Amino acid sequence: MGKARTLVLLLICFYGTLVSAYTKYNTGATVVEGKLNVHLVPHSHDDVGWLKTVDQYYVGSNNTIQGACVENVLDSVVGSLQKDPNRKFVFAEIAFFHRWWVEQSPETQEQVKKLVATGRLEFVNGGWCMHDEAAVHYIDMIDQTTLGHRFIKDQFNATPKAGWQIDPFGHSAVQGYLLGAELGFDSVHFARIDYGDRAKRRNDKSLEVIWRASKTFGSSSQIFANTFPVHYSAPKGFNFELGSSDNVVPLQDDPLLFDPNIEQRVQDFIDAAVIQANVTRTNHIMWTMGDDFQYQYAESWFKQMDKLIHYVNKDGRVNALYSTPSIYTNAKNAANQLWPLKTDDYFPYADGPYAYWTGYFTSRPGLKRYVRFLSGYYLATRQLEFFAGKRSTIYNTFDLADALGIAQHHDAVSGTAKQHTTDDYAKRLAIGASEAEVAVSSSFAYLVSKQSGDQSSAVASTFSQCQLLNISYCPPTEDNIPAAKDLVVVLYNPLGWNRTDIVRIPVNEANLAVKDSSGNNLEVQYVDVDSVTADLRRFYVKAYLGLSPKIAPKYWLLFQASVPPLGWSTYFISKAAGKSTRRKGKLSHLNNKNGENIDVGPGKLKMSFSSTSGLLERIYNSKIGVNIPIQQNYLWYASSEGDSRDSQASGAYIFRPNGSSPYIVSRSVPLKVIRGPLVDEVHQTFSSWIYQVTRLFKGKDHAEIEYTIGPIPNDGVGKEVITRMTTNMATNKEFYTDSNGRDFLKRVRDHREDWPLQVTQPVAGNYYPLNLGIYTKDKKSEFSVLVDRATGGSSIKDGEVELMVHRRLTNDDGRGVGEPLDEEVCTQDVNVTCEGLRVRGNYYISIDNVGAGSRWRRTTAQEIYSPLLLAFTHENAENWKSSHLTTGTVMDPNYSLPPNVALITLEELDGGIVLLRLAHLYEPSEDAQYSTLAKVELKKLFASKTIKELKEVSLSANQEKSEIKKMTWKVEGDKGQEPQAVRGGSVSTSDFVVELGPMEIRTFLLKF
Amino acid sequence: MGKARTLVLLLICFYGTLVSAYTKYNTGATVVEGKLNVHLVPHSHDDVGWLKTVDQYYVGSNNTIQGACVENVLDSVVGSLQKDPNRKFVFAEIAFFHRWWVEQSPETQEQVKKLVATGRLEFVNGGWCMHDEAAVHYIDMIDQTTLGHRFIKDQFNATPKAGWQIDPFGHSAVQGYLLGAELGFDSVHFARIDYGDRAKRRNDKSLEVIWRASKTFGSSSQIFANTFPVHYSAPKGFNFELGSSDNVVPLQDDPLLFDPNIEQRVQDFIDAAVIQANVTRTNHIMWTMGDDFQYQYAESWFKQMDKLIHYVNKDGRVNALYSTPSIYTNAKNAANQLWPLKTDDYFPYADGPYAYWTGYFTSRPGLKRYVRFLSGYYLATRQLEFFAGKRSTIYNTFDLADALGIAQHHDAVSGTAKQHTTDDYAKRLAIGASEAEVAVSSSFAYLVSKQSGDQSSAVASTFSQCQLLNISYCPPTEDNIPAAKDLVVVLYNPLGWNRTDIVRIPVNEANLAVKDSSGNNLEVQYVDVDSVTADLRRFYVKAYLGLSPKIAPKYWLLFQASVPPLGWSTYFISKAAGKSTRRKGKLSHLNNKNGENIDVGPGKLKMSFSSTSGLLERIYNSKIGVNIPIQQNYLWYASSEGDSRDSQASGAYIFRPNGSSPYIVSRSVPLKVIRGPLVDEVHQTFSSWIYQVTRLFKGKDHAEIEYTIGPIPNDGVGKEVITRMTTNMATNKEFYTDSNGRDFLKRVRDHREDWPLQVTQPVAGNYYPLNLGIYTKDKKSEFSVLVDRATGGSSIKDGEVELMVHRRLTNDDGRGVGEPLDEEVCTQDVNVTCEGLRVRGNYYISIDNVGAGSRWRRTTAQEIYSPLLLAFTHENAENWKSSHLTTGTVMDPNYSLPPNVALITLEELDGGIVLLRLAHLYEPSEDAQYSTLAKVELKKLFASKTIKELKEVSLSANQEKSEIKKMTWKVEGDKGQEPQAVRGGSVSTSDFVVELGPMEIRTFLLKF
Repeated sequence: MGKARTLVLLLICFYGTLVSAYTKYNTGATVVEGKLNVHLVPHSHDDVGWLKTVDQYYVGSNNTIQGACVENVLDSVVGSLQKDPNRKFVFAEIAFFHRWWVEQSPETQEQVKKLVATGRLEFVNGGWCMHDEAAVHYIDMIDQTTLGHRFIKDQFNATPKAGWQIDPFGHSAVQGYLLGAELGFDSVHFARIDYGDRAKRRNDKSLEVIWRASKTFGSSSQIFANTFPVHYSAPKGFNFELGSSDNVVPLQDDPLLFDPNIEQRVQDFIDAAVIQANVTRTNHIMWTMGDDFQYQYAESWFKQMDKLIHYVNKDGRVNALYSTPSIYTNAKNAANQLWPLKTDDYFPYADGPYAYWTGYFTSRPGLKRYVRFLSGYYLATRQLEFFAGKRSTIYNTFDLADALGIAQHHDAVSGTAKQHTTDDYAKRLAIGASEAEVAVSSSFAYLVSKQSGDQSSAVASTFSQCQLLNISYCPPTEDNIPAAKDLVVVLYNPLGWNRTDIVRIPVNEANLAVKDSSGNNLEVQYVDVDSVTADLRRFYVKAYLGLSPKIAPKYWLLFQASVPPLGWSTYFISKAAGKSTRRKGKLSHLNNKNGENIDVGPGKLKMSFSSTSGLLERIYNSKIGVNIPIQQNYLWYASSEGDSRDSQASGAYIFRPNGSSPYIVSRSVPLKVIRGPLVDEVHQTFSSWIYQVTRLFKGKDHAEIEYTIGPIPNDGVGKEVITRMTTNMATNKEFYTDSNGRDFLKRVRDHREDWPLQVTQPVAGNYYPLNLGIYTKDKKSEFSVLVDRATGGSSIKDGEVELMVHRRLTNDDGRGVGEPLDEEVCTQDVNVTCEGLRVRGNYYISIDNVGAGSRWRRTTAQEIYSPLLLAFTHENAENWKSSHLTTGTVMDPNYSLPPNVALITLEELDGGIVLLRLAHLYEPSEDAQYSTLAKVELKKLFASKTIKELKEVSLSANQEKSEIKKMTWKVEGDKGQEPQAVRGGSVSTSDFVVELGPMEIRTFLLKF
Repeated sequence: MGKARTLVLLLICFYGTLVSAYTKYNTGATVVEGKLNVHLVPHSHDDVGWLKTVDQYYVGSNNTIQGACVENVLDSVVGSLQKDPNRKFVFAEIAFFHRWWVEQSPETQEQVKKLVATGRLEFVNGGWCMHDEAAVHYIDMIDQTTLGHRFIKDQFNATPKAGWQIDPFGHSAVQGYLLGAELGFDSVHFARIDYGDRAKRRNDKSLEVIWRASKTFGSSSQIFANTFPVHYSAPKGFNFELGSSDNVVPLQDDPLLFDPNIEQRVQDFIDAAVIQANVTRTNHIMWTMGDDFQYQYAESWFKQMDKLIHYVNKDGRVNALYSTPSIYTNAKNAANQLWPLKTDDYFPYADGPYAYWTGYFTSRPGLKRYVRFLSGYYLATRQLEFFAGKRSTIYNTFDLADALGIAQHHDAVSGTAKQHTTDDYAKRLAIGASEAEVAVSSSFAYLVSKQSGDQSSAVASTFSQCQLLNISYCPPTEDNIPAAKDLVVVLYNPLGWNRTDIVRIPVNEANLAVKDSSGNNLEVQYVDVDSVTADLRRFYVKAYLGLSPKIAPKYWLLFQASVPPLGWSTYFISKAAGKSTRRKGKLSHLNNKNGENIDVGPGKLKMSFSSTSGLLERIYNSKIGVNIPIQQNYLWYASSEGDSRDSQASGAYIFRPNGSSPYIVSRSVPLKVIRGPLVDEVHQTFSSWIYQVTRLFKGKDHAEIEYTIGPIPNDGVGKEVITRMTTNMATNKEFYTDSNGRDFLKRVRDHREDWPLQVTQPVAGNYYPLNLGIYTKDKKSEFSVLVDRATGGSSIKDGEVELMVHRRLTNDDGRGVGEPLDEEVCTQDVNVTCEGLRVRGNYYISIDNVGAGSRWRRTTAQEIYSPLLLAFTHENAENWKSSHLTTGTVMDPNYSLPPNVALITLEELDGGIVLLRLAHLYEPSEDAQYSTLAKVELKKLFASKTIKELKEVSLSANQEKSEIKKMTWKVEGDKGQEPQAVRGGSVSTSDFVVELGPMEIRTFLLKF
C-alpha cells in the first residue's frame, strides 16, 4: 500500500457513517377490492391555442402572457415515466404531440413507443385537438379526430379508448355517441356541466351516467360519461406543479429534515377522497392530477404522487393508484352497478346563475365562417385529390388538415382565444387554404384534362379560384376577356347528386354571353354591385391582401349551372358578339311603390314586404299552401357589464344581456327590390351598419338572406346583434336545434330535462348552438332557418326564432381570455386604419307543412356546406374543348347517391389507401320516404376503378369495426324494450353495396 | 398474409411521409484559439436559507414566499446532464447536496459519481454553504468548508478547484488567500464589489485580477479573482428558467413551426458577448447561466444552451462552449497575459451611492453571538470528543457541525434572512448545541473519570452545563447544595496555554466556601445580581425555555480558577461551616460620591469616571505608563427611510443613517461602583434600555464592558445603536480592523486604495466588519477594542472608535428580504408577550504603548473565542476525588503551546483519523517576540498517544498539501522582489515538530 493509497484512506473517512434517507416508494398499487380506490390520473390540459398561439404554447415563447411550454411537458413527462414503470400519464392533443414527435431523435421515439406499448403513456381523446362541442361541425370533429387517431395508430399501433373532453363548455349529443361510442371509446370524461345539473348530480350520485346521446341508436351507441365533481384540476392541496401559485405542501418524509408531514398529508388525502366518494357511485374515484399546461416539470408531480401512493397505501384506509381513464372505466364497469341514464346533451353550460356560456356560440363570426367554409373546401379538395391521384410530393393539403384540426379547438372556433391567437388560427387556415388551392387547381386541371392516362405527372394548372367572391373580388372574372378567348368557368360539385345552382360572379361588363359546354346560350341576369359590397371589397381586399384594385366590378353576372354528382361542368363566358343591347333588358328593376305590399319571388316561395316600413310581413308558398305572417328585424342586446346582482359581464364566452329589452335597430328601412329571371333581391338598409339582401332564386323554394353587419358602433355599450323572425306560430315553448350539424334536438324554453331549472337568464339561458340550423313548428307548419356557420340561436317567445349574428363587447367576462371581444380589422398604408369587424353571412329560410321540413333542411344543409367549387381560366372555348372534358363525373354517369346519403369523406391516404365515409342524413322518423335504409353502390360510385379490398373501420379509421368491443352496462330503468336501431349489414365483396340506416355513418378503407 | 395483417397495412399508412424536424445539436465545443470564447457556466445559486428555511428551500415548501426547490434543481440537473456528455453544471452548497445525496438510490448515486468523475457536474466552493465574508470567523469558514470538502472527497474523491462566492456582500482578505489559495483553489468568482470599484474596473479591464490578499504571504497565497461585469445572472435575454418572469425567447429552429428566430438569437448572443468582451482581458468571457434557485427544471436551460452552442458556432463569429470556472480559469491562465494586482479586500460593498451594505455587519446581534459562542463551543467539543474517544453512535455532534455550517451562510449569520428563517437557524443551532452538550458532558465525564481504560463504554455523565449563564440562569449553581455534598465545578480549558480566569456563577447563598482540588479555600467575591439581569433572566428563561423559575439567584459568586492547557481543574463549593459571617465582608461596596472622579480597577489598569456625569473620563495603565483621556457613550443613528436624494432606506443589509448627528442617549448616567478582591464593577444606566457594566478583574490589564441594550424603542424611527469611545489620539484617519478574526487591515477614513472614492455616506461608507476587533494608534499609544461577535465598527473622527451593537429598523431596504429588521422576542403564556430584542454582550478595551497592543489582542481574542468550559455536578468532594482526576491535561504536563500558536482544530474523524490544525497568531511585524517561527512538539501535545502516521494536507483536509499545484500568473508591476514569506518546514516523522511561520495555518491528518 503506497503513500497515495494511505492518504486516500486518511482523506476518505469522515462520511463513513453517512445516514441514508433513501426510500424506494412502492407505486405498484392496482385496484383493490373492498377499499376506496383513488385513481390518480396524471394529465396536462394543453389548449391548442388560447392566450398564446399553438406554436407559442409548444415552444414556450410569449411567456409573459402565460408561462406555458408543451415541449417541456412532453420532454419531462417522458423522462419521468421512464423512472418508474408504474407511473402513468395521459395526453390528448395530437397537434402538440405531433410537433414534439417529429423533433425527437429515433432513440427517444423508440423509448416513447415502449411507454405507449406498456400503458405508461396513454393517449386519450387522441384527436388533433380537444375540439369544441358547440361551434363545430360533425365532419370537422370526425376529420380532426381521424387525423390524430391515424397518427397514433401509425406511429404506435394504438387506439385510444377514452374520450377526454375535460374543458369544452358544454357537451353535445354528437360528441356523446358519434365522437364517443362510434370511435370505440368506452368512456368520456369532462368537467363542465351546468352548475344546477352538477349540484343535482352530486346530490344523487349521478355525475357518472350511461349516456345515450343518440335518439336513433340509443344503447347501441352509449358511453360511460364521467362528469368530474369539481373540475379537471387536482383536489385542493394536491397540485404539485412547479411554480404553482398554490402553496404546494410537498410530502416530507426525510427523517433528516424538519417539518415531516406524512401523517398529515395522508390524512388530507383520505379526507379529500372521502368527500369525493360521497358523491360517487362504486368505490372508485378519479383524481385528475393536473391542470392547464401543467407537468412542465413532470417530476415535481410524479415525485409527490409516488410518495402519496406509497404512504396512503401504507396507511391502508384507502387505496391510491396510478391510473388512466381506461383503467378507471374498466373498474367502474367491473363493479357491475346500476348507472343513471342520460339522454340528449349538456347544453347550454352555465357556471353560475348569471354566467351562461352561450355567447361563444356566436363569438368571432368571421372566424367561424372561415372554418366552416374551409371545412367544405377541404372535403372537396380531398375528393379531387383522390380522383386525380394524390401527389403529396407536389402539393400539400396537410397544412389545411392541420390548420382545420387546430381550428376545431375549444378556444379556437369557439371564438374564445385572444385576438393575436385568433389571427394565428386565421393565418394557418389561410396558408392551408392557399396550399390546398394549388392542390385543387392541379387536381382539377388533371381531372378535366383529356390526358388522364398519365397520373404521375402534374398537369400544369392555369385555374384560378376566388376565395373573396362573396365581397365581389375575383380577378379572373373581373378581368377583361380577350377577344379570342373565353372566360372558362369550371364548376365542381362535391355532392353525390346532380345539382342546379345559380352562379354569381362579379364582372365589369354587361354584354357577356354565357354558353354551356354544348354551346347553348344561357339566360343571364346582371345585378348592380351595391355600394355596401363595393365598400366591403375596397376595405377587406386591402386588409386581407394588401391590394387596392383600381377598378371595382360593376355587376354581378348570374346564370344557372347544372353539375353532375361528384362531377364537373364547364361554362364559357365571352363578350356578346353584338352591342350590349341585352344589357338594359337584363338589368333588374328597382321598385319602391308606396301604399301596397311588395311581393317578391320568381318561384313558388313569395315574400311580402311592407312598402311603408320596408319590413317583411309575410312569407308564403303557394305550392304547398303554407302562409305565415312574419316580421323580421335586427335587434341588439345591450351587454351587461356586471350589475348589483352579479359582477358577471358579457364576454367572449358568456352572453349576459343587461336585462333591458333588445334594442330594435330600425322600425322602418329603405327598401330596394330587384327582379330578374333568375333571382329577385330585396335590399334593406337597417342602419348605417346593417345591410340585408334577401334573395329568392329561380328553382329554389327558400329565401337566402345575406346580412352585412358592422362595424358595430363601439359607443361604450356592448352589443349582441340578432336577427329575429317573429311568426304567429303557436310553438308551445319548443324549438329544435341541431347537434353539430347532425341530429336535431328538441329544446323547451326555460326547461331542462335533468334538473329543475331556476330561470335567472331568460334569454341567455335559452340559447343553443346552431351549426345546421333551427326550426319551429306548430300544428300546421314548420319554420326552418339554416345557417352558414356556427351561430347561437333561440326562440325566446312562442313563434319567434332568433340568431345571434355578431357581437362587439366592452368587457372581459373573467374566464381567462382577458380581453373584451372587440374585433377590429385593419388596413396598413402609411397609417394603420382599423375598424370594427364587418361580417357578411347568409341564412336560409324555408316554410313547410308540418313534418315536411326535414327534406329541405337536410338537402339544403348539404348544399350550404358543399357549395359548387368554381375555377376560372381564360382560353378559347374551342381550344379548351379539344383538350378537356367539359363535363363529367367520376361515378357511373347514370348513378347518383340516394338523396338521403352524403359522401362525407373521400380521401386518398398514403399508400393508395382510400378513406370513404358515407352518412345517412335522416333520423328515423324525420321523413316518411327518406328515413329508411339507404343503399350505396360502391361499384357505381367508383365507376372507373375496381375495388380490390374493403374494410369497415371505426369512425376514425383506426381499428376494424368488427373488433370494437363494447362494454355492457346496467342502466337504471332499463327494461330492454328499446327498439332496435336500423343499421346496414356487412358489405358483400361481390356487389359492394353499402347499406345505411337512418343517421348511420359508415367508414371504410379501400384499395383499388 | 392474414386478415389482421392486411388491416394493419390499411390502417398504418397516413403518416408514411411524416416530416422529421429532429436536429442533433453539436454541443461539443471546447476552447478555440483566436476567437472570442463564451464560457457558459450553468449554475443555480441556492441560498442555504433566506426567505425560506434551508429545508423549505430543499423540499420546495412554503412556495408562496418564493417558488424554490433545490431538490428539483438537483433531480433535474442530473437528468439533463445524462442526456448529453458535453453539458456541464456547477454546484456549490453542500448542505443542500448532502440532503439530496442521502435520499438517492444507490443507482442514482452511481450515475452522479460518473457525472462528477467526467467533469459534467463540478463542485465549486464546495463548502457546506456559500459563507458570508463579513460576519464570519475564519475558524467557522474553515470548518464549514472542511465539512463540505471532505464530503466531496469521501463520496466522489474530488477536490473543488474554484471559489464561487458569487453572492456575498463584499469579499474579505481571509477569503481571498486562506479560503482560496490555501484550499488549493486556482480562482475565485464573485459578483458583488463596490459600484465605483466596478465602474473603474470595467473601464480599465481590471475586473479580473490576481488577488494577493495576505500581506504575509503575498504571491504564495494569490488567487485569480474574477469579478463578474454585472451580476451572477445570465446576460439579459438569456435566462431560460421555467416560469421566469423574464420574457424568455426560446430558440426556435423547427422549420415546421412559426416564428423561427435563430438568426436573431445568434445575433443577440454575439452582441451580448461583444459587450462583455469589451470590458474583459483575453478572448475568454464567462456567462453565468443561472440565478437564484434556478434550474428547477434544468432541461429548460440545457435545451436552449444546446441550441445556442450549436447555432452560434455554426455562425462562427464567436465560440460558445459549456464550461466551468475551472475550465475558464485554465483558459485565462493559458492566455499568459498580464493581470492587474489586487491586495487587501473588497469591503465595504455598496451598490449605489446611498446603499452601503454595512448594516449587516451588526444585524441580528443575538444570532451573531450565538453563532460565535457555539463556534468556540464546537471547537472544545471536538477536543473533548477526541480525548475521550469519539463515540458517534452514542452522541451526535454532526448536527452542530451542520447547523454551524449552515449558519455561516451569507444570509444567516449576516442577519439578512427573514425572521422565520432566522428562527430556524437558531433552532438548528440549539438542537446541535443540546446534542453537543451531551457529547461534551459524556466525554468530559469520561476524561476526568479514573476508569479511563475502558474507552468503549460511555461513562454516565451527571454533568450539567449552563448555556444561559450570562443572564444568571444556571440551575445546578442556583440549587441548594445538600449538606453532605459539594457543588463540583469542573473547568475545561480549550486553549494550549495554562489559564487563570475569574469564574462567575449565580448562587442563592452568600455563605459558600470554594475549595480547589487540593482543599485550599479560595478567595471569593459576591456581587448582587442587578435588576436588569434579573429581568433579562425572567423574560428570556421564559421565552427560550418556557420556564418561570420561582426563585431568582441573588448573587454572583466569583472566584479565580487556574486551568492547565487542554486540561481541566476541579473546584468544590460547599456551604461554609459557620454562619454567613463572611457574607457581609465579601459583599461589595457601593460607592457614589460626588465632586471628585471615581477611579476603579484592582490592578494596573484604572478607569476614571466623573462623579457628576457618571461617564468615563480617563483610562490609564500605570505599569506601562499609558494614560488616555476618553469619553464613552451610547448613541444612535436615526435610520433613513429614504429621502429626496435617494429612496434607499436603512435595512437588514444596508446602513443608511438619515444624516443627522447621532443621538446621544444620555449625557449623565446614574453610576454604581462595586469593588471587591476579584473585580471592580461600574454599573451605568444610560437609559431605561441601555445598561452597562464595566469590569476590571484582578490579574487582567483590560476592561470588560458588558452592555445590555433593548428593547430599542420602536417609536417610528429606526435606531442603530453604537457605543462610541472618544480619545484625544491623533489617529490620522487610520484605524485597523480584522479580516474574519485573523489578519488586521489598515483602514483609511473616506478613502479606497483602488479607486477615487466619492464620499456620499461619511458614516456608513466608513464602516467595516469586525470579528476580532478594532484598534487605533497614534505616535505613543494603541487603543484596542475586541468584540465577542461580528460587529460593525469604525472610526468616524480621529481618536474615535465606535461599534454598532444593535439595530431596530422600520423599513425594508429593498434587497429582497422584504422585512424591516425589527427583532422581537416572545413569551407564551395564555397570551403571547413580545418585546424588542434585548442584547447583552461584551467588548474589551486595552491601552498599550504603540506597537505593543498586538500581544493583548491576540491572546485575549483566543480567550474570548474559547472561554473556560464549565460543568457542574453535586457530589461529596472526597467521593469525587476518589473516583476522578481533579486536574489534568492531555498534553505533557510540562508542555504548553507557544504563546503565538493556537490549536484551532483537533477533531477525531471517523476511522480513528485525527484532524489537527495549528495556527500562528501573529503577522510578521506585529510583535517583536512573537512574530517569529514557532514550533509545536506534537509528541508533547499528544503526550499519552503515539503518532503512527501524519500527513500535511490542504486547509480543508481534502488533498495532500504537497500535491497542490499552483498556477503561475504574470502580474502588472511585479518585479519579483517580494520578500519570501516564512513558512514552517516539513514535519519530520522522528520528532514530529511542526513549525509555523507568522500567520501560517497548517493542517494535518494523523493516526495514532
